[in-house]
Amino acid sequence: MSSHPGPTEGVLFTDQYQLTMAQLYFERGLHERPAQFDYFFRRYPNYGRHQAGYAVFAGLDPLLDWMDEIRFTDEDLELLRGQHNAMGHRRFGDDFLDWLSANGGFDDVVINAIPEGRVVHANVPIAVIEGPLALVQILETALLNHLNYPTLIATKASRIHEAAGGRPALEFGMRRGPAFGANAGGRAALIGGADFTSNVGVSHEMGIDPKGTHAHSMVQVFMALGLGELEAFRAYAEVYPDDCILLVDTIDTLDSGILNAIKVFEELRGGGHQPVGIRLDSGDLAYLSIEAADMLDAAGFNDVGIVLSGNLDELEIWQIRAQILDEYARAGRDPSRLMDRLIYGVGTRLITSQGHEALDGVYKLVALQTKGEWVPAIKVSDTPEKVPIPGKKQVWRVYDGRGRATADVVGLVDEELGNDEIVLHHPHREGVFRRIQRENITEIENLLVEVFRGGKRVTPEPTLEEMRRRRITDLERLDVGVRRLINPHIYHVSLTEQMKAVQLRLVEEARDG
Amino acid sequence: MSSHPGPTEGVLFTDQYQLTMAQLYFERGLHERPAQFDYFFRRYPNYGRHQAGYAVFAGLDPLLDWMDEIRFTDEDLELLRGQHNAMGHRRFGDDFLDWLSANGGFDDVVINAIPEGRVVHANVPIAVIEGPLALVQILETALLNHLNYPTLIATKASRIHEAAGGRPALEFGMRRGPAFGANAGGRAALIGGADFTSNVGVSHEMGIDPKGTHAHSMVQVFMALGLGELEAFRAYAEVYPDDCILLVDTIDTLDSGILNAIKVFEELRGGGHQPVGIRLDSGDLAYLSIEAADMLDAAGFNDVGIVLSGNLDELEIWQIRAQILDEYARAGRDPSRLMDRLIYGVGTRLITSQGHEALDGVYKLVALQTKGEWVPAIKVSDTPEKVPIPGKKQVWRVYDGRGRATADVVGLVDEELGNDEIVLHHPHREGVFRRIQRENITEIENLLVEVFRGGKRVTPEPTLEEMRRRRITDLERLDVGVRRLINPHIYHVSLTEQMKAVQLRLVEEARDG
Repeated sequence: MSSHPGPTEGVLFTDQYQLTMAQLYFERGLHERPAQFDYFFRRYPNYGRHQAGYAVFAGLDPLLDWMDEIRFTDEDLELLRGQHNAMGHRRFGDDFLDWLSANGGFDDVVINAIPEGRVVHANVPIAVIEGPLALVQILETALLNHLNYPTLIATKASRIHEAAGGRPALEFGMRRGPAFGANAGGRAALIGGADFTSNVGVSHEMGIDPKGTHAHSMVQVFMALGLGELEAFRAYAEVYPDDCILLVDTIDTLDSGILNAIKVFEELRGGGHQPVGIRLDSGDLAYLSIEAADMLDAAGFNDVGIVLSGNLDELEIWQIRAQILDEYARAGRDPSRLMDRLIYGVGTRLITSQGHEALDGVYKLVALQTKGEWVPAIKVSDTPEKVPIPGKKQVWRVYDGRGRATADVVGLVDEELGNDEIVLHHPHREGVFRRIQRENITEIENLLVEVFRGGKRVTPEPTLEEMRRRRITDLERLDVGVRRLINPHIYHVSLTEQMKAVQLRLVEEARDG
Repeated sequence: MSSHPGPTEGVLFTDQYQLTMAQLYFERGLHERPAQFDYFFRRYPNYGRHQAGYAVFAGLDPLLDWMDEIRFTDEDLELLRGQHNAMGHRRFGDDFLDWLSANGGFDDVVINAIPEGRVVHANVPIAVIEGPLALVQILETALLNHLNYPTLIATKASRIHEAAGGRPALEFGMRRGPAFGANAGGRAALIGGADFTSNVGVSHEMGIDPKGTHAHSMVQVFMALGLGELEAFRAYAEVYPDDCILLVDTIDTLDSGILNAIKVFEELRGGGHQPVGIRLDSGDLAYLSIEAADMLDAAGFNDVGIVLSGNLDELEIWQIRAQILDEYARAGRDPSRLMDRLIYGVGTRLITSQGHEALDGVYKLVALQTKGEWVPAIKVSDTPEKVPIPGKKQVWRVYDGRGRATADVVGLVDEELGNDEIVLHHPHREGVFRRIQRENITEIENLLVEVFRGGKRVTPEPTLEEMRRRRITDLERLDVGVRRLINPHIYHVSLTEQMKAVQLRLVEEARDG
């Protein structure tokens, strides 16, 4: 962002109650009291017929950029000055607004977070935010907004990538995406597993090539001119002889589209060009892929790719691949060459995370400083899963003898993991624990990294390539059962004995008090 | 927008294939050929257990503002100049980029549309876009993006408003909303039926008061300080004596929250202030509302409101109200006073349109000018519902003897509705038609209004109040069966005889050709 955004994308991109609470803290002299909030989510996305066993963290770097940029501007303060209650009184006092004007950036906020692109798990603090109570309260909404939706989309994209079995996946969803949120969605998809996107702006921002060829409307234009599909394809091939992917289902895929595409591909070949592919956007994609491949092969176009699109998601892709494998097996044919020419274009269902529309990420107060000491805070709930992990903490990922991640462990900020064995307690169920002998551990990794301090990011902005590498590395070190598309195994998230003891003590105190 | 947005929100907020097609049209000399596209959706949202029978149109005015503002900037053109294909050749030629530079705004585009806020129906052109082929093609993605998501959210908000039975509904969803798309969602919710939003920036932009009081975290802060819920409530009441709404479920709603709230309300009353309400954010909201109302009444706070929140949508609200009515009826009590104090806060499920994540709005080529004549275009599909209504057209809404909207009718641009009777044909099923006698018609309304020409909006920007009035007027004139939350009646969308004849002729020609 090169200029100050307007009130809807600046610091007033927040919920009103953050401001009313901030003023209350100001009035009570609590506004500069150091406070700590944790960002975490409670449940992996559950899409109904399929479920995630992990998530891919995204949205952090745009959040840090926003925090770096954002201040209470004179315009913002003027708007707040104009708020009145039902009695006609000003809602926000000048003292408070003056303090916001002088202090209302994020200069005193420190964020430790798991780096963007990494695999993350339920109930583990992904970002730990420390700073003056009033400001970290105001930050809540923008932080949740910046992290929840991209993490949701990156997670979906990762599943699509897994379902595609190493073949390219393209993000095509901006037309049905959520207004300009489609940009955040496109970026998250690229981090999470989409190889490319059709979104031109986001592609350029992320330094990759945008993908796209032509729509049905181009064929229709030629038809309205009294010409036909063949002339439309020929025109396309003339303008893009080395990038020729033809959409073959405007009229009829098998009876018209593929036949015309083959004619044009032959002309291209005659001119010394290599045709790139066809795209199938409707119908029974497994069946049409098989037929199309056979027709292309028969014409000598064994290397031409087949792009599939039209209401795809991870489950559809998985099913199409399973159907092709099955039908080739019945025919005693080797499916690998067909599988290796498929490319998947995924639109609406990715950008909206169809089936699970929102990550339940929350931002919870976990500690407050009193007389220089950090006092852990807790919210007791009737639902045990909703009791957060209190206090200042650290997070480790423990790798087993195979080098696979076996648990994420949350402990107190000043403790070390045991030397002989590690005892891992279930975060919500009392008495449920597991022991790991030290000799069965190959690595203990600290997950939280300081990313923001003094009003600036303190780690360099990662490239798309770096974020993707983090995801790929983490996925390779994750148990295959946890990576399943359906009914994944449950990854262990645990508390150390000391952390468990603090949680139990606080719950008891809160219930007694 | 006061300054040029960056590449992700400018004219490159488009799909790559729009640009490759535009260049093809340029190469073929078709780029300035007048073309017409219709924007319409095919299916009302179906949320699974409940379904919409109408939609509320939103997003038009932000689209017109964007079109007014947007040009191909030097930065945009530089990015396109930097695109290369796999052979290392420039993808976009200088001639084409020069033409975009000189002509690449929307100065020659004309849009006729149904005004924002109005009730709209499936298969009816909501916006008709006419202009140079290359530019209206490039516009497609941004137009769909600007209209689909807001219309989806306004529709959901309208249903929530209907379910709330005249009581206020508040939009609270930005923390789980789709990045900055949450702003478009908040605005659409306000147009569609939310009375207020917690989104501070959007509230100020739309000229209304943002709503919000405090979160659980405020009570937790006081607990971490060794104080309790009562002290937290007292502090809130001191700072906001005339706006005191207390969230009562941080510890225990009935055993702690409401009791403490009543204590603080008594103190407020002693000081001459009128407490405003309590908020219930978890648990069995029907049961807790009844209990809370009785406790507040017993303490003499009959006028204190009860805000309900926590995973609400139209079906939840409808069920809560039904449960209260039922339980009051069993007890022989009058529920109206309780119903009249309820206020509904709706978050995630509104901003994500839970259950139906994307409107299937499309942008279809319907006519192309050839030698000064408009030639209708059609895309024949195996699915009859996917065959669009061709050609240049007009749209009427016909009101019956009761003054109720009885059908939306699509006809040719130069025809008039019959003087004796109107024959209405089903848009997709041949031979299905209906006759309406002229004496049974009280009004025929032309729905499409010219809104954009010469690079500028030509109608003044409507106020929120105007857009809401359009919705309310349209809903009042809609059959109650169509407004149902579940299994709504099907509203008639029809073609005139002449339009039906054109559609049939084109389908036949396309099938023969």
